Amino acid sequence: MPDLRVAIVGGGLAGCLASILMSRLSRARRVLVTVIEMRPDPRAPTTVWEPEGRSINLALSERGMSALEEAGLDSPVRAMAVEMYSRFVHEVGGTYKEVPYGEEDQCLYSVSRTSLARLLLLSCSACENVSVIYSAKVTGVDLDAGRVSYECDGKARTLDTDLIIGADGTYSRVRAAMARRVPRFDVSTEHIPMAYKELTISRQKGMHMEYEVLHVWPRGDFMLIALPNGNGAFTVTLFMDADRLEALAAKGGAAVHQFFETHFPDTIELMPDVATQFLESPTPPLLTVRCRPYNHKGRAVLIGDAAHAIVPFYGQGCNAAFEDCMKLREALWQHSLDDLPSALAAYSASRKPDADAIADLAIEHYHDMASSSGSTFFATRRKLEVLLGRLAPTAFMPLYSMITFSTMPYSKAVERAAAQDRTLRIISTAVGVTAAAGAIAATAAVVTRLQRR
Amino acid sequence: MPDLRVAIVGGGLAGCLASILMSRLSRARRVLVTVIEMRPDPRAPTTVWEPEGRSINLALSERGMSALEEAGLDSPVRAMAVEMYSRFVHEVGGTYKEVPYGEEDQCLYSVSRTSLARLLLLSCSACENVSVIYSAKVTGVDLDAGRVSYECDGKARTLDTDLIIGADGTYSRVRAAMARRVPRFDVSTEHIPMAYKELTISRQKGMHMEYEVLHVWPRGDFMLIALPNGNGAFTVTLFMDADRLEALAAKGGAAVHQFFETHFPDTIELMPDVATQFLESPTPPLLTVRCRPYNHKGRAVLIGDAAHAIVPFYGQGCNAAFEDCMKLREALWQHSLDDLPSALAAYSASRKPDADAIADLAIEHYHDMASSSGSTFFATRRKLEVLLGRLAPTAFMPLYSMITFSTMPYSKAVERAAAQDRTLRIISTAVGVTAAAGAIAATAAVVTRLQRR
Repeated sequence: MPDLRVAIVGGGLAGCLASILMSRLSRARRVLVTVIEMRPDPRAPTTVWEPEGRSINLALSERGMSALEEAGLDSPVRAMAVEMYSRFVHEVGGTYKEVPYGEEDQCLYSVSRTSLARLLLLSCSACENVSVIYSAKVTGVDLDAGRVSYECDGKARTLDTDLIIGADGTYSRVRAAMARRVPRFDVSTEHIPMAYKELTISRQKGMHMEYEVLHVWPRGDFMLIALPNGNGAFTVTLFMDADRLEALAAKGGAAVHQFFETHFPDTIELMPDVATQFLESPTPPLLTVRCRPYNHKGRAVLIGDAAHAIVPFYGQGCNAAFEDCMKLREALWQHSLDDLPSALAAYSASRKPDADAIADLAIEHYHDMASSSGSTFFATRRKLEVLLGRLAPTAFMPLYSMITFSTMPYSKAVERAAAQDRTLRIISTAVGVTAAAGAIAATAAVVTRLQRR
Repeated sequence: MPDLRVAIVGGGLAGCLASILMSRLSRARRVLVTVIEMRPDPRAPTTVWEPEGRSINLALSERGMSALEEAGLDSPVRAMAVEMYSRFVHEVGGTYKEVPYGEEDQCLYSVSRTSLARLLLLSCSACENVSVIYSAKVTGVDLDAGRVSYECDGKARTLDTDLIIGADGTYSRVRAAMARRVPRFDVSTEHIPMAYKELTISRQKGMHMEYEVLHVWPRGDFMLIALPNGNGAFTVTLFMDADRLEALAAKGGAAVHQFFETHFPDTIELMPDVATQFLESPTPPLLTVRCRPYNHKGRAVLIGDAAHAIVPFYGQGCNAAFEDCMKLREALWQHSLDDLPSALAAYSASRKPDADAIADLAIEHYHDMASSSGSTFFATRRKLEVLLGRLAPTAFMPLYSMITFSTMPYSKAVERAAAQDRTLRIISTAVGVTAAAGAIAATAAVVTRLQRR
């Protein structure tokens, strides 16, 4: 069999992981992967890497980690990450409460996007069948000819391939080429009213700030979060209505300082220069991109943000992108490399409902994060869910856990959560939520005790 | 005041009507309109006009006609149109029933798209302040500079303007320029699974085919419709799942003939060459385009399909486009020509919910048209609605009438229909739908009799 030539457009997180997994896809047929990356070689001494309008860190969970494991990259990522076992919810008064993410051994991994991207690029360029073209600007994608045109060192070049993988992010050129070429191609770009400002809490002596947690200051229609950075600092993000952010910036530094003093008084000491930071930082939009199908025959396929950019509130953007790489590999295994049209169509058909599910969840999850302590009913419900999950983990798992600590397909998790919800509602209606919670708590205590013996 | 220079990209139905209304906008300030049109001058003897992948006729109703009236074009359009007072619903067995569209004096106007486009182009080029550039291919749109670049006679040219109106249809270049330039611009392109084939019933001697009606052969998941053409012929459209259309075409002429004989036996005699027609006709997709906002500051604005392409089942695409022209004029009047940013923002904000409403209705209306006779409950409900509408026209108007025979904003019509629905459901539940219908019918008969006196 001749070699299979694969071009991956975009050497970001998804593109790099895909290149590693693709290069090891088959023993019967050699897969030669070329990654076309806009940024310069990270090994060059003069390289400065800037995340472009992207959050500078992210939280990996089960889906992302298990995909990295397949590439043998879970250990180095764990080593650079900060484990977060809970949320610290800060009230306006300065008090806070701790809400665990899951069971005692379940955590999110907070990593710097730049460090992760660098690790992935270095790893894939070390792979036998992967070559990376750096500082390359894609200028054209001919889906039918399988040809990618790009500029590098001021020269126009082309790359001929059997398969083009579009891993070129939210504003994907490969997706744009598909929109022109694929009959009845659907695509949508939808912004939420909110935008964000990224700030930093620098490492400080004697800082009173719990490190291995995600901090959140929920304020209803806006919120502040902080993730540990690995170097003792925190990446802080303010989410708020875009027009309101703009209006606040227009009022100047004193107004910004006043705003933080009013709503996040405990952060002022940690960010004395908050006004300057705020005024100097850009205001990236938050948007969802959907399209269908993800493939053009057996010639091209989209992964990651290029296929389904989502808003960040569920912390699943990178996890979903890494999961795409796994699912694409699975589809190629099932249909063999000699039937790319079937393999890519199967990937697209199975992945689309999952991507839509997490896109919707990500938008909804803002409210879970930004609504302060929540109603008593909600708190009781949440406790009840956790108890039930412990009591009968195969029968009941909270939605957050299914999304974050399992690799169950997103759409299936949503379906199962709806069924669980109905059951809980029926029980709660029948005996009252407090009585139900009491009964379940008592049962759980008994079971736990029995299990400990 | 200096002249206001307006460039309208696209001299289709919406662009031409807009040019006429814009050129007469103000007495205080001269408005100079330039229409940039891809097609050649219709007055040139060699010109052959082809509707590109578009249905070759359409049905105008109240919204479209009242907009044409403002341009003084209602009479010539009425003269070229065929009035349709009802639907003829053809069952498989060859029987049919007639369903009036509204009251006795309410009809749709079936017109040939080409004739209407020609009339509008000739009318606008006759306007004092309108000039039309024919055979011009737009190559670039600079929204901030207000510059449109185009090619004409093999030469690159530019046009500098104060306001760009994008009337360039479903695949609008002006919209694409806005997607690149306008912060947080939302845009979506969504296909329905169905596509269509356009066929013709030619004028025949002794043809048994009622002329002043819309014919429909509803078959559930596919349907055939026929609109009178004005020259004795009918334009026939088969709507069906795109993959199924493709599969049928792949099976060849005999299979196509068999398909029509099975499902539309009474059309075989009228279209003896149906198989050839079917195989030779293209299969255009059916899609909805949504975007937001419709304007870029005071510099550019979208109208018609460029802003909101919709599927054809409610017969409102052209009507909505003409209504856009009226609404844009209203907004410019209210905010004056000296405050274009406010005027265009107001147009966009008020028009968006209406365009979304008719886009959704158009998709849903397929089922109303394609579900055969319908359930008895539905038929009773429909009768009840008509009776109530007659009895208390200010309090009750069927949704179809509000959309087709009024100029009430689309979104308001949907809202009012929902309220009417709730009321009807309450009454029907309370006394039973048959009893309610009986009571209302009796009341209506009394009122009608009294009114006749």
